[in-house]
Amino acid sequence: MKFNLPRGLRDIEPADFELMERIRDAFIQTCKLFGFSLMEPSPLEMLETLEAKSGSSIRDEIYAFKDKSGREVGLRFDLTVGLTRWVVSNRALQFPVKIGSFAGLWRYDEPQYGRYRWFYQWDAEIFGPTNVDADAEVIDFAYSLFRRLGLEDISIHIGDRRLVEEYLEKNIGVKDEPLVAEMMRALDKLGKKTAQEILEEYSSKVEPSILNQLLEFGKISGDIEEVLNRLKEYHLTSTTTLIDLVDLLKHRGVKNTVIDLSIVRGLDYYTGVVFEAFTNDQALGALAGGGRYDILPAIFGRPDLGATGVAGGVDRTILALKKEVASTTQREPLIYITYVGKEVRSFAQHIASTLRGEGLPAEVELMERSLRKQLEAASKRNSDYVIIIGPKELASNRLILKNMKDGREEVRSVAETIDLLKQLTKTR
Amino acid sequence: MKFNLPRGLRDIEPADFELMERIRDAFIQTCKLFGFSLMEPSPLEMLETLEAKSGSSIRDEIYAFKDKSGREVGLRFDLTVGLTRWVVSNRALQFPVKIGSFAGLWRYDEPQYGRYRWFYQWDAEIFGPTNVDADAEVIDFAYSLFRRLGLEDISIHIGDRRLVEEYLEKNIGVKDEPLVAEMMRALDKLGKKTAQEILEEYSSKVEPSILNQLLEFGKISGDIEEVLNRLKEYHLTSTTTLIDLVDLLKHRGVKNTVIDLSIVRGLDYYTGVVFEAFTNDQALGALAGGGRYDILPAIFGRPDLGATGVAGGVDRTILALKKEVASTTQREPLIYITYVGKEVRSFAQHIASTLRGEGLPAEVELMERSLRKQLEAASKRNSDYVIIIGPKELASNRLILKNMKDGREEVRSVAETIDLLKQLTKTR
Repeated sequence: MKFNLPRGLRDIEPADFELMERIRDAFIQTCKLFGFSLMEPSPLEMLETLEAKSGSSIRDEIYAFKDKSGREVGLRFDLTVGLTRWVVSNRALQFPVKIGSFAGLWRYDEPQYGRYRWFYQWDAEIFGPTNVDADAEVIDFAYSLFRRLGLEDISIHIGDRRLVEEYLEKNIGVKDEPLVAEMMRALDKLGKKTAQEILEEYSSKVEPSILNQLLEFGKISGDIEEVLNRLKEYHLTSTTTLIDLVDLLKHRGVKNTVIDLSIVRGLDYYTGVVFEAFTNDQALGALAGGGRYDILPAIFGRPDLGATGVAGGVDRTILALKKEVASTTQREPLIYITYVGKEVRSFAQHIASTLRGEGLPAEVELMERSLRKQLEAASKRNSDYVIIIGPKELASNRLILKNMKDGREEVRSVAETIDLLKQLTKTR
Repeated sequence: MKFNLPRGLRDIEPADFELMERIRDAFIQTCKLFGFSLMEPSPLEMLETLEAKSGSSIRDEIYAFKDKSGREVGLRFDLTVGLTRWVVSNRALQFPVKIGSFAGLWRYDEPQYGRYRWFYQWDAEIFGPTNVDADAEVIDFAYSLFRRLGLEDISIHIGDRRLVEEYLEKNIGVKDEPLVAEMMRALDKLGKKTAQEILEEYSSKVEPSILNQLLEFGKISGDIEEVLNRLKEYHLTSTTTLIDLVDLLKHRGVKNTVIDLSIVRGLDYYTGVVFEAFTNDQALGALAGGGRYDILPAIFGRPDLGATGVAGGVDRTILALKKEVASTTQREPLIYITYVGKEVRSFAQHIASTLRGEGLPAEVELMERSLRKQLEAASKRNSDYVIIIGPKELASNRLILKNMKDGREEVRSVAETIDLLKQLTKTR
């Protein structure tokens, strides 16, 4: 009988887990440096919580089901909703509240190459401030995280939904909210599809000539001076936030910021500044994205709280790491303890414990195989050093230490071997 | 509108998350020392996979539902089943396979105080060996993990299901498998309930006089010599494994091992040596448990593979840490940067980035509050140092550094302040 996984699911296997762990570790360190507390919101929510902003259409895109008591529940599709619910329901919190989370999410998308129905994201959110200072902080957070991971070529593309809204109202005369939302979703596709494809896709929903004007407007990008110059012809005034934000980011040492009016983000809870982080390989798509979503705490009952944040997908970042920095990985050196003769077996396990007690990663033969098979196993596991113990070594309390790189062997006392291994593994 | 969580669910809030992170970190370090690879199996499985050993009765205890294509799926209730499925379906693996996982699980239990329907476990498994060497390795793993966490009073209670089976057959004449399984489940309750309660609970399923004999047998515990002595009267022969195991554990430096024949474990995939780890506070229940389950790889199609492992619940270990070692926690010192005057704002953010770039955890005022409110906020966040920057400091490129412990203030250049903070935070 063959036991398969449900469609779109997968195991995170050791090689990918190791890279994910590197991302998680960099995220935790960045949280500490920036003063974000860590937590994890519940993976299961009442369906009405998940629908609070997006309405019942979200059901089609998530795992939703009835539990045994008939309650409609769903697996979280992002971390923002759960973190916002938590903040809003905790009246004792001191603002600003800065929280981070690294956890798995579920979406009932059609599975594609490299896209699964279960995946990990990191997420950093600031609740309280409505100032752009908090937007600068989360962008700086994302930038610092990627730099810490060794991704040197990160650029941050920044837009502002209010600027697009002002353009739509003043220059095209569109201010009807559902139509604005539809046009934002169309504009959001500009990085992934051509204008022609988008016009066709949306032809039944938005007048193509009007949408085309917006797509032309969305092509405006560059540094802040260039963009302000281009915006003059449209007589738009809601540019103060972006000017302020760019200045703060400069003072924070965040390099490679690009104003890009096509960045509006897909999720409909965003209300102001929005941004995405890319490597030079734009085809990979954004590694992280976020923005201001003051409307979500308001829906949950706290209209007095501002909210802004950033989230990054782990799978794309793993791809970027594999391409750019994975070759520099350094794993800990491994010592494999082999032995000959039944009477040596428990002594070999004693030596393994002794090495581990000294902080030296050690494996010991567990299957009572022949020495030849043990040495084969040590070699297949890429062990750096092999310790060989026979009855003679047991009697004299000595060990044979074999360096797997050059094949050299030395016979020493247990204490000497430990000292030597500590030296050898320190200087690597 | 109030947005509640589904019954039995919860958020893992910052205080608990911090302790969970300490456990996770100790687990990862122990995996490295012992040479276990890390991975995470899928959180969603086909229901038939989850039912492979336990049969359809498991449906009542887990989150099971139909996905949108009508497939019956379920959220994992342990990590062992998923890890076994993964190992069995990967023909290229070299044995022994040693893997660890730290992840969330779901069970549709009746929620109780301190018991939730979603919780974290760590898990370490060895596939391949049928030798007791592998059982010794996973017990040593658990013991080492708890010692690393600072839990000094861990004792390991060890039983062997085959010994109980031999007793039932030879001394009571019971060898019918469903009845044996039922009696094992009754015996498993001995640590949590009195014999009288168990006899009543099982009176409709097992003849009380027979069950009572087993419960008396289950009370046998002590060091290996004592237990062997007691077992003489029953003429049992399947004691070799336990004798061998105890000897290996002694050589590995695992202290406080107790042979305890009431340990049989609840899940019905166990087939041999089983064990549980306790602190001195037995009322807390076992912090970890495990044993040999060769039958599970056989069900998944690899009868040639042995399997043994150990898993620990995070919630109970958090309780133990809170009681025994949490007071020794040392968080990183936090520096809060306050400023006076709009023109100083971006310089303050620049200083925050500079400190973080030097590895110093820093917060910067994001809400443009008055200096009094900023200092209040810094104090409420238990900041260790506050930097104050006004127009005069901006002009002279100097910073006021205030030590929150003694209230002393010093005015220094930026470079001098960084050097001082590095010294101060290093010597803590």
